[in-house]
Amino acid sequence: MRRPMADDWGLLEPLGAAASATSDDAVLAALVEVERGLVRAWGDVLGDNLSAVAAALDAGALDREALLAGARSGGVPVIALVEQLRAQAEAIGEGAGDRVHAGATSQDILDSALVLVARAALAEARGHLVIAGAALVALAAQERDTGSIARTLGQHAEPTTIGVSVAGWLDGVSSAIEAVDGTVFPVQLGGAVGTGAAFDRIAGRAGAAAELRAALAAELGLADPGRAWHTERSPILRIAGTAALVATTLGRIGREVAFLARTEIGEVALASTGGSSAMPHKRNPVDAVLLTANGLRAPGLIATVHAASVSQDARPPGEWHAEWQALRGLVRLALESAAAAAGLAGGLTIDRDAVARNAAMSAHLENHPAPTLAASARIVAAATERFRSLTPKDAS
Amino acid sequence: MRRPMADDWGLLEPLGAAASATSDDAVLAALVEVERGLVRAWGDVLGDNLSAVAAALDAGALDREALLAGARSGGVPVIALVEQLRAQAEAIGEGAGDRVHAGATSQDILDSALVLVARAALAEARGHLVIAGAALVALAAQERDTGSIARTLGQHAEPTTIGVSVAGWLDGVSSAIEAVDGTVFPVQLGGAVGTGAAFDRIAGRAGAAAELRAALAAELGLADPGRAWHTERSPILRIAGTAALVATTLGRIGREVAFLARTEIGEVALASTGGSSAMPHKRNPVDAVLLTANGLRAPGLIATVHAASVSQDARPPGEWHAEWQALRGLVRLALESAAAAAGLAGGLTIDRDAVARNAAMSAHLENHPAPTLAASARIVAAATERFRSLTPKDAS
Amino acid sequence: MRRPMADDWGLLEPLGAAASATSDDAVLAALVEVERGLVRAWGDVLGDNLSAVAAALDAGALDREALLAGARSGGVPVIALVEQLRAQAEAIGEGAGDRVHAGATSQDILDSALVLVARAALAEARGHLVIAGAALVALAAQERDTGSIARTLGQHAEPTTIGVSVAGWLDGVSSAIEAVDGTVFPVQLGGAVGTGAAFDRIAGRAGAAAELRAALAAELGLADPGRAWHTERSPILRIAGTAALVATTLGRIGREVAFLARTEIGEVALASTGGSSAMPHKRNPVDAVLLTANGLRAPGLIATVHAASVSQDARPPGEWHAEWQALRGLVRLALESAAAAAGLAGGLTIDRDAVARNAAMSAHLENHPAPTLAASARIVAAATERFRSLTPKDAS
Amino acid sequence: MRRPMADDWGLLEPLGAAASATSDDAVLAALVEVERGLVRAWGDVLGDNLSAVAAALDAGALDREALLAGARSGGVPVIALVEQLRAQAEAIGEGAGDRVHAGATSQDILDSALVLVARAALAEARGHLVIAGAALVALAAQERDTGSIARTLGQHAEPTTIGVSVAGWLDGVSSAIEAVDGTVFPVQLGGAVGTGAAFDRIAGRAGAAAELRAALAAELGLADPGRAWHTERSPILRIAGTAALVATTLGRIGREVAFLARTEIGEVALASTGGSSAMPHKRNPVDAVLLTANGLRAPGLIATVHAASVSQDARPPGEWHAEWQALRGLVRLALESAAAAAGLAGGLTIDRDAVARNAAMSAHLENHPAPTLAASARIVAAATERFRSLTPKDAS
Repeated sequence: MRRPMADDWGLLEPLGAAASATSDDAVLAALVEVERGLVRAWGDVLGDNLSAVAAALDAGALDREALLAGARSGGVPVIALVEQLRAQAEAIGEGAGDRVHAGATSQDILDSALVLVARAALAEARGHLVIAGAALVALAAQERDTGSIARTLGQHAEPTTIGVSVAGWLDGVSSAIEAVDGTVFPVQLGGAVGTGAAFDRIAGRAGAAAELRAALAAELGLADPGRAWHTERSPILRIAGTAALVATTLGRIGREVAFLARTEIGEVALASTGGSSAMPHKRNPVDAVLLTANGLRAPGLIATVHAASVSQDARPPGEWHAEWQALRGLVRLALESAAAAAGLAGGLTIDRDAVARNAAMSAHLENHPAPTLAASARIVAAATERFRSLTPKDAS
Repeated sequence: MRRPMADDWGLLEPLGAAASATSDDAVLAALVEVERGLVRAWGDVLGDNLSAVAAALDAGALDREALLAGARSGGVPVIALVEQLRAQAEAIGEGAGDRVHAGATSQDILDSALVLVARAALAEARGHLVIAGAALVALAAQERDTGSIARTLGQHAEPTTIGVSVAGWLDGVSSAIEAVDGTVFPVQLGGAVGTGAAFDRIAGRAGAAAELRAALAAELGLADPGRAWHTERSPILRIAGTAALVATTLGRIGREVAFLARTEIGEVALASTGGSSAMPHKRNPVDAVLLTANGLRAPGLIATVHAASVSQDARPPGEWHAEWQALRGLVRLALESAAAAAGLAGGLTIDRDAVARNAAMSAHLENHPAPTLAASARIVAAATERFRSLTPKDAS
Repeated sequence: MRRPMADDWGLLEPLGAAASATSDDAVLAALVEVERGLVRAWGDVLGDNLSAVAAALDAGALDREALLAGARSGGVPVIALVEQLRAQAEAIGEGAGDRVHAGATSQDILDSALVLVARAALAEARGHLVIAGAALVALAAQERDTGSIARTLGQHAEPTTIGVSVAGWLDGVSSAIEAVDGTVFPVQLGGAVGTGAAFDRIAGRAGAAAELRAALAAELGLADPGRAWHTERSPILRIAGTAALVATTLGRIGREVAFLARTEIGEVALASTGGSSAMPHKRNPVDAVLLTANGLRAPGLIATVHAASVSQDARPPGEWHAEWQALRGLVRLALESAAAAAGLAGGLTIDRDAVARNAAMSAHLENHPAPTLAASARIVAAATERFRSLTPKDAS
Repeated sequence: MRRPMADDWGLLEPLGAAASATSDDAVLAALVEVERGLVRAWGDVLGDNLSAVAAALDAGALDREALLAGARSGGVPVIALVEQLRAQAEAIGEGAGDRVHAGATSQDILDSALVLVARAALAEARGHLVIAGAALVALAAQERDTGSIARTLGQHAEPTTIGVSVAGWLDGVSSAIEAVDGTVFPVQLGGAVGTGAAFDRIAGRAGAAAELRAALAAELGLADPGRAWHTERSPILRIAGTAALVATTLGRIGREVAFLARTEIGEVALASTGGSSAMPHKRNPVDAVLLTANGLRAPGLIATVHAASVSQDARPPGEWHAEWQALRGLVRLALESAAAAAGLAGGLTIDRDAVARNAAMSAHLENHPAPTLAASARIVAAATERFRSLTPKDAS
């Protein structure tokens, strides 16, 4: 294949390799999975055996140049995709092409596919979050009694412990897991304008549209929302909000770790550090830096997803198209950051000498160590218990 | 009182009067309510009767100039507030001032107060949403069989009904209610650096901090999060996300209504319209326009709240301060928009002649009216049922 | 006056008092100034003496409750304003009311008024920037040879000087001044739909609209853009971009100063610091923190202004209304930050011992002091010269 | 080459093929161009002939997998790039590798490369803007006397002409060109921490750093900013602001054209329309829709660039990394939109019957046609003259 010209292969996305679940290939696979699921759902609704038609649809055999040309002329990649998929189906029997995309519209396919991609990416992110959390549970336990100095507005404030700081990061991870677990991933199926009338018409009976939507949801493992939400984008806002929360929450951990790893602070060391093209002596806290960067990239994208929801029409003239890259971008950031956080958390070590040295600068403050240590024990226990309650099966 | 110079009294905020719950007066009242609640919570924890101290704290008697001067010098309005409140308490008995703000930090008070304001504003918004939804339920039922033309990308697409369009708006209102109902409003109480050690110290026993937090939560009717979240802002991201969802969801309704009320379209009329300084004949769909505007203002603010969460320190040097106005702004937009939506929804009338005239431009498309009407009945029923299940007590 | 309910008197805006030029009072005064200027411009164009009419318009005598009520019903505060101003004029002679707002539309007045407010605020900001820059010139000169350690990604990197760091801040100030100086502040005058036809009609001759716009620009000291830009918002994007640049550029200085003032770093001390409600020993770098916060608040607002420009119609149904608060908010942040930066810059002192102590941690790097000092001299000189060339009259 | 996993080949970017100048390949080529330019600049400064070394650097021969692996471990793609380029140089002679990247740091190369990419993309965009403007000049002239109805807040307002509307779009194009022409594209060269001390050291004399920067600027055709701006990101804010202005300005044209092409309005037709996967009769105004979408995508990215500028350190731990994709994304949107706008503008046709039919709905308003036509002539002439003055060589 000749390379399309706006191709991005990861040069400016250092954590990109972690996010295979969000690549264009993954989106294309999801688009085909939705079309395949729709064929099978039609089989369920009509009582026909359409598994051969579904099986004929092959993402790997698609002409990508034609897809891109179709996306340019049609404004959406699905139109050209359906043409090719119908031709693939037609090859196994005349008329089989008509079973593909029957009654559906581009938005049904693309919305459902992006929800599939988001679900897969956030599920994968959750796995990384559990690993990160488990590492932080261990670190918090280990440093529960390591007295340190807390800083507010950059100034030494009052004594705390490293355990308390780590418990705070663990709480962030737990909040991220909680957000993922509370997110609903609904299928989209409404036909041309959301009424699903074409589905009823094809099936020859009222109510087929709702059956088909339920069947498609079951095929894809997505939720059946009980409605089309083509114009009511709150499901997307929720998914995007979860992804943004994951990315910014981990961004905070990255920023704090990068700070604690600063030369003058030195309380934390990372297992893996990067070099410099100009300064071979540098030990850069690369993962912490990239987590921070991802956290800073999420706000603009969540803004775009919200702005895109203020739309009109049964398919808005621009707002819908503006949503795709922002939504994909957010789940990519979430997945990239979760993967990086898992690596980061597992490789953190505390330099207790440095911790003590810094705290000693404000030794006059430490006249009540017992309450602080008791608080630390309570806080570490609470954060640990919260994490475990969210991950009963994961944390063994 | 001499007017402070950056005073905004609503000139550029046409829907501002709807949002009294978010004014600086409301925030100040909430700050005092939190301090008063903390005094009472201490009473509970210590078994002292501190109700007279709590009762002595009076938001109305505060010197606002001094508060503003204190906010300027301290970066936060709470320091000067505590000084004044302590003086108020001291007036009822020597040493009573020490019972105010005991062991707490500015962030405990301001975070809790903003959560109180957000909860009140979103609760009030919910009331308006229920009214809006009830009006849309009636309108959808009434126009269930009013055949119309759906538009996609601005072009006539396929037949639908006005009932289906209204059901889509109703789904938006239901999603907004669902978001509000799913939002947790937690108290903040961690003391200077989040450990709560000072609370234990003052109480003279370990565990007092957790009791005090629970007592304060009960006093204020907020959730007890089981932890301090001073540095882990996901609770704020969730509240802000709900407010943004309310504002953008209603923004979409506003945009669609404004479109349907356009001169050439004319399918919808608003009960209340505005005039023009240049064109006395104008009948502007003001509420629809202002709903749209609020929807477009929310994305920037939700971006700010997310960016502010990528912070460091037990109280970040800037990020925390950047969050206040953005969070307050979002809940204000949500409340303003909900109030406007309630008024808008109750005053919508459908011009069936205009609907039919527009649909007739694409009469060739309408060759299967029965499936569309059946779909409309199903969709209106589903949206109505969804709304009713979310508002069992409200919708009588 | 009964207080309107969404009133914000500065409680959550610690730097608000610096920004009187952007208050609702200032906006109202600007609205009246534009209407007054328009009356005088009509006098110029028609050769009538309308100065008495113009003088009759009095911002101080307006009924603000009625303005707010009018803004609520009309969606814009100008309609009710014009009613009141016409009544003021009418009091000096029958028919004089008709000379007010003649041929104009709400957008002419509000756009021009917000540009006036922006110009005044940014001009005032420029004054503060010059003061800040002058202080940094002195500080850079003073610390030109103070060897320090530069940090990249939080790690000690290579030697530099405090002078180089300060020169970097000075460059930021110069860039902010340059941005302000390069900003055009155009009048808006297009009448109801931008053609200005009503102006020609009233004047009884073609071309009067252009004369009137030029006359109004001269009256207000704004640029004559040669066109109406009611729908083409690039002038607003430019003004907003300048304000955002000022706020974020100063935000960076704030963030860096707050860092250098951290307890462990201690290289910089601020003349003015704030306390804490929980920790009396704290010396918080309040101005640096608030500069950072303002820098973090600007991005969301610049996003809103850009989003609001993607509009339609001769006056868009929502986008225009979404722009007002975002634009005003940005110029407020710029002015607040410039004032704070002037104070901050004038009060910075360098702790050379701390600088040397930190640098000594990486003493092995400093084996070539001469090139660094030579570079410092060159960089400080260049930054100083750049600042002086931008402020030839200011820097005495 | 094995495909990296986060690869995006354009599936969700319908206008992507227009933006080859911003692809990862283009960025990589620019990185190598900067390194090559630096070698040649060193040749100039040292009086050595290094052209063979420069010529040995070959973007096409790089191992991209290794680049991506290096970006992952180092957080930036330049470190691994330099390794490979040095090996390429070394192949032509021992020690030649040392002449590559001499004294420079990753940020010098990446910043300069992204500025190169931005300049090329915006220059290409300018070419498209000139074509779009020329088409609009012709259209405005042709429809100068085509009376139409202007709409405000969606309601019929006052008479205007199609010429006036088109002149408004033309003004947008002119403003975009003006913004591009006013944008400075500076080289970045400061060495490890911005002092350029290493350059002096290598050259063996003070002042070499400034000469080298000037020489590099000349080699690359970029401006010599007279300083390093590694930490003072206003040059990036300016470039990003220009790109955002281009994208949103064209977004407004897209939105307005999409509106005028709506079925009920029908005043404008596009030469090229797209189909639908569900509705073969649809004629979707694809280019107008995609212009709108790009306009809505820009605000989030401009927010990110501003947020990323509020940083610290001589190379910030995260903010810098957050900037890359946002900046590249903005110039991509600008270029994509300019290319689409050129195509759109050249293919617009006006349906005068529809224009007249719509205007006739408000025939009572049209009682003064002469001033409107006179105004139209004036406005079209002014917009045309403004465009021509900005494009004296382009518009023949």
